[in-house]
Parts: sequence; C-alpha cells; structure tokens
Amino acid sequence: MRKKVRIGKIWIGGGEPVAIQSMTKCRTEDTDRLLEEIRKLEREGCEIVRVAVPTDEAAQSLRKIRNKIKLPLVADIHYDWRLALRAVEAGVDKIRINPGNIKERGKIKEIVKVCMEREIAMRIGVNTGSLHPEFEKKYGRGVEALVESAVYYVKLVEDMGFTSMVVSVKSSDPVENVIANRLLHQRIPYPLHIGVTEAGPPSWGVLASGAGVGCLLMDGIGDTIRISLTAPSVEEVRVAKRLLTLLGIRKLGPVLVSCPTCGRLEIDLFRVVREVEKKLERIKIPVKVAVMGCSVNGPGEAKDADVGLAGGKKRAVIFRKGEIVRIVDEDKMVDELMKEIKRMEVEYDEGG
Amino acid sequence: MRKKVRIGKIWIGGGEPVAIQSMTKCRTEDTDRLLEEIRKLEREGCEIVRVAVPTDEAAQSLRKIRNKIKLPLVADIHYDWRLALRAVEAGVDKIRINPGNIKERGKIKEIVKVCMEREIAMRIGVNTGSLHPEFEKKYGRGVEALVESAVYYVKLVEDMGFTSMVVSVKSSDPVENVIANRLLHQRIPYPLHIGVTEAGPPSWGVLASGAGVGCLLMDGIGDTIRISLTAPSVEEVRVAKRLLTLLGIRKLGPVLVSCPTCGRLEIDLFRVVREVEKKLERIKIPVKVAVMGCSVNGPGEAKDADVGLAGGKKRAVIFRKGEIVRIVDEDKMVDELMKEIKRMEVEYDEGG
Repeated sequence: MRKKVRIGKIWIGGGEPVAIQSMTKCRTEDTDRLLEEIRKLEREGCEIVRVAVPTDEAAQSLRKIRNKIKLPLVADIHYDWRLALRAVEAGVDKIRINPGNIKERGKIKEIVKVCMEREIAMRIGVNTGSLHPEFEKKYGRGVEALVESAVYYVKLVEDMGFTSMVVSVKSSDPVENVIANRLLHQRIPYPLHIGVTEAGPPSWGVLASGAGVGCLLMDGIGDTIRISLTAPSVEEVRVAKRLLTLLGIRKLGPVLVSCPTCGRLEIDLFRVVREVEKKLERIKIPVKVAVMGCSVNGPGEAKDADVGLAGGKKRAVIFRKGEIVRIVDEDKMVDELMKEIKRMEVEYDEGG
Repeated sequence: MRKKVRIGKIWIGGGEPVAIQSMTKCRTEDTDRLLEEIRKLEREGCEIVRVAVPTDEAAQSLRKIRNKIKLPLVADIHYDWRLALRAVEAGVDKIRINPGNIKERGKIKEIVKVCMEREIAMRIGVNTGSLHPEFEKKYGRGVEALVESAVYYVKLVEDMGFTSMVVSVKSSDPVENVIANRLLHQRIPYPLHIGVTEAGPPSWGVLASGAGVGCLLMDGIGDTIRISLTAPSVEEVRVAKRLLTLLGIRKLGPVLVSCPTCGRLEIDLFRVVREVEKKLERIKIPVKVAVMGCSVNGPGEAKDADVGLAGGKKRAVIFRKGEIVRIVDEDKMVDELMKEIKRMEVEYDEGG
C-alpha cells in the first residue's frame, strides 16, 4: 500500500480512489478565463486541477481565484524556484516541480521548507527533459535514467525531512511509461501520478493513454492520473473517467459497447450508436449499455451488458443482462432503450 | 514461440510480425461494394480480411471476388455449418467459427475435414455468446468460462487431427480480455487472434482497445489483431497500425506526439497539431514527430522524438532529436517541419 498524501481536501494513495486531474490551458494571468476553465473542469468531474505558473502575475491570479474554487489547486513550476514560493503564498495545495529543472539543492530546499510550513504536498516530476545529468550520462535517455533520477530526487527531498510527496516519471512512449512506473512502484512508497506525456491530439493520445496508463491501472499502479491531450481540458477528464470506468477501477458513469457491424447488418448502426452516445452524456449511473446490429447474436454476445438494444428486420429487441425485455419498432428503439435506462436510474437511486 | 499457421499468402505466429486484420461492413451479397471495401482495406494496410457469410448468396459473392483480391480472405460463419463448406468451396483461406454456436461435433468435423483437404486455416473463436454450456454453468460468464471453452474446443479439433488453428477469446471488457488471453497464452501453442469485442464507437473503442489489446501486445501476446470499432473498416486498420507503431512492435508510419498545452502557451497549438496531423497522413516512414507549444521546454522534453517543432513568441524552432536545426517564423513552421520530414524520407530511402 502506498503512503497517503493530502492535496487540499482530498487524499491520494493508501487505498483511496484513483484521483482524476487535469491542467488548465488558458493563460494563467487571465483570471476570469482561468476561473471559468476550472469551474468547467469541476463540473466535468475533475478532482485536482493544476495550473502553470510562469510569471508573478500568474501567481497573483491563483491568489485571486483561490477562495472561489473548491478543487485542490496545484501550481506547476518549471524553472524559477521563486515562483514556487509565490504560489505557496497564494494558497495552493500542492507544488509540482521537476527538480532536474530547478537544479540547485539550495533552491529545492527553499521550496520544501515553505511546503512543510504550510503543510502542502509536492509532486516530484521527471521526464525526458528533466533527467538528472549524471543518470542521463550513465544510462542515456530512457527508462533507467527516468527511474534513477526520480529515486535520487525523492531521496534528496526525503533527507530534508519532507514526505508529503507524489512522484511521477513520464514518457511520451507508452511502453517506456509502463516499464518506468512498474520499476518506480517497487522502489518508492509514495503515491504515483501517472500519465503518458505529450500523448498528442485525441486521435493519438487516447490510444497511447489507453495502453500506457490503462496497462498500469490494471496492475494496480497509479494513485492519480492525468490524461494528456492536445484538446480542451474537459476532454482530458472525460477520457480519464471513461478509462477508470472501463477498467472497473471506479464507477463514474455509463460504458457504451457496440458491435462493429458486419455483412449481416440490416440497420444503420453507426447512426444509432451516435444517437445513443449523445443521449448517454446525461446519464450518471454506472450502467453498461450495448448497441448491437443483429437480433440473433446481439443479446447473447452482449450478455454482460446491463442493458442494450439489438436491431434488425424493422424490429428491435431491448434486453437486460441478455434477457429480452420487449420487442419494439425499429424507429422507437433508441427511445425505448433510454426509457429502460431511466428506469434503471430510478432503481439505482432507490437501491443507493 | 507460437506454432506458425498459414493464411493464404501470409503466416502468423512463430515470430512473424503481428498481422492486422479487419472485417468488411457492407452487405456481403453486394459483390461490387464488397470488392471496393476490400480494396480500400488493402490500400490502408490491412493484411487479412474477414467477411461475414450469412447466406448462400454471400458465399457466391466470395467466389466472384476471390481472384480479384490479393488479401488473405477469411469467411466468418456463425450458425450454419453448411455455409462454411460453401465458403471453403468459394476459395477462402481461413474459416472462422465459434464452435459454441455450431454445437454438434459431427458438423464441426465436417468443417474441419474440408479445411484439411484444402489446407486452409481455421479460427476457433469464443466470446460471451458462444461459451461451452458446461463451463458457463460451472463458472458463470467471465474469464474462466472463456478460457476453458476455448481449450475444450481446441482439443476437440486437435483430436480430429487438425492443427492449422488460430484461437481467440474475446470480451467487451478490456480487463477480462487481458486476463483471459494471458491464461490462454499459457494453455495452448496456437497463434492468438486478439481484440476487444464490441469495443464501441471510436470515442470508446479506441480507449478500450488501447488498454485491452495494448496491454497484451506489451506482454508479447497476440499474433494477429483486429480493432473492433463501430466505424468504417479502414478506421479499424488505421488504429491497429497506430497501436502497433506506438508500442514499437511494428513500424508502420509516423507517430505524432504533442504537448497538451498549458497556461504558458503562446500559440494556437490545437490548430497547428491538426494541420501537422493532416499532413502526416501522406508520410510513410517511421518517424516520431513532436509538436510542442513552448520553445523553452519543447526541444528538451521531446528529445526522444526524431523531429519536431516548438513554437512561441512569433518564432519557432525546428529540432531533430532535441537538437535545434533552425529557427523560423511562426507562420512557416509547419511547412518547415514538413520539409525536414521530407528530407528524412529521402535519407530513409537512401539508407534502406
């Protein structure tokens, strides 16, 4: 079991649910837009929000919004240790630094000191751009240099008497990401923040994260995740929620499965699936929904779905756990499916 | 090492490259559309194509196209064993059956007999809808029932003297998929066909496949893959190629990484990334391309990319392996990046 670390009002590690985080993308200095983006993230289900602090003005912006948001707030600091001090003064709940970018021990110690005084957490991050020069020289870039750098910096900060740490090693290569985190998991007792870095636009990043984050989550590795996408930040949260739900780690809403269609198909399933997908956005209960193109195989192949429809020959069946509930006209099937799901929402609320 | 099995002109298992397959989605009886879809798949990089054979007319359609396509052709048979015989007569290279749907041993034996005579392969498939009733009763649905059913049917067919088998157990749950295939991998020596079944539309299916297929591929499990998506079949091939390339298993084109952007951003990176993504569609060499939003961190964090751009403050740097090649105006950066990639294409061709 990992050590437990507090980030504002939430805890990570030590058996707590894997927390979802994202990072804001507007200019931090633009306080109004920052507040708006964070509120959107909160509504979407984000649990920790990180904000880049590249200037004094950005730190001021954090101070202005601090009491207007409930989400734990993390300041992302790259090179200038003084900005970390400003961010702490502004009232953030955690500081993220890559010690490899700050470099000097004395400056790192200053940051650790204020974090201890304020009892806030710190993430120690390492990526390809912030390896410890000694390990980069010894191992080149890659898994060993990432892990050894992280272990080195963790020990450095531990020796300063600080333990409220979260640690990350990130690569844009999903395989490196998996191997590095498996190794790191065995080497240190602190919660791990995982994510494929620079994963790209959704067309690449969702796939890379599915593999590079999903594989670790299945191993029980990862205490907080950030899906990095070149897309609006709410999209990162949406994908994170889907991944955790798909893997049965948390239940954060519905799962949609659907048949890929084949030469047996008798309905326009692509359209039906798009319609169901859209309508599911408003459903909050953890329900596995199947949309199948053929009433012969459909209910059987989707037996593990909680509810579904299977179309074909002008009629469709609505089923629950593989059992046919009723047969309906094709043009009513999506409505009938949604009615069934609404019914399950009521059952769920009554049961919970 | 897996046994090696021949599917028409290609081999799978035994250290051969992981083969990409897809399944056609038009009505199989519509010969012209079928041919067109298969040709599109071939152009996209599909290596094995499967076609549903629900009717005699569908089997006839296969006969008509057989000599017009080069791709190994697989007939997908669900319930009617006689259609398997027709498909074999039509000249397919492999038959896919779920013995759990055919049920009777005598009928399965008839199919095996013609496959042996024609020296063609067979896939033994098991999914939640085609479990062996005995194991479904004993274990319920889930991993054990999937694996035990597959092992049972493999032995049944082996006892008939047939070994040109490919085997699959598929679930729509990525975790079940991973566990079932890990177990099956240890139990049988035949090549495994892997894929998350009914993975859904791209918004769900890419993520589920990244986790449920990617995780197995990283373990060295899987000899042929099919990414199941409720989307046009070429999209399945595109995602399969990306996954294999991202995981370093095959080199089937470029990889795009890009920074998620943050409050430090000074350019419209979403737009730039979309533009690069579009232009990369025409690039065939295995090159890792990074599009970074900030010239300070960009080249360093993307050191493991072969080539990239990092924008900011009206200027952008073009870099190779983290080393700056030149500094260009922001409005020319995508063109300059593509020029550099074209140069690498020439180098690649000369090198190869």
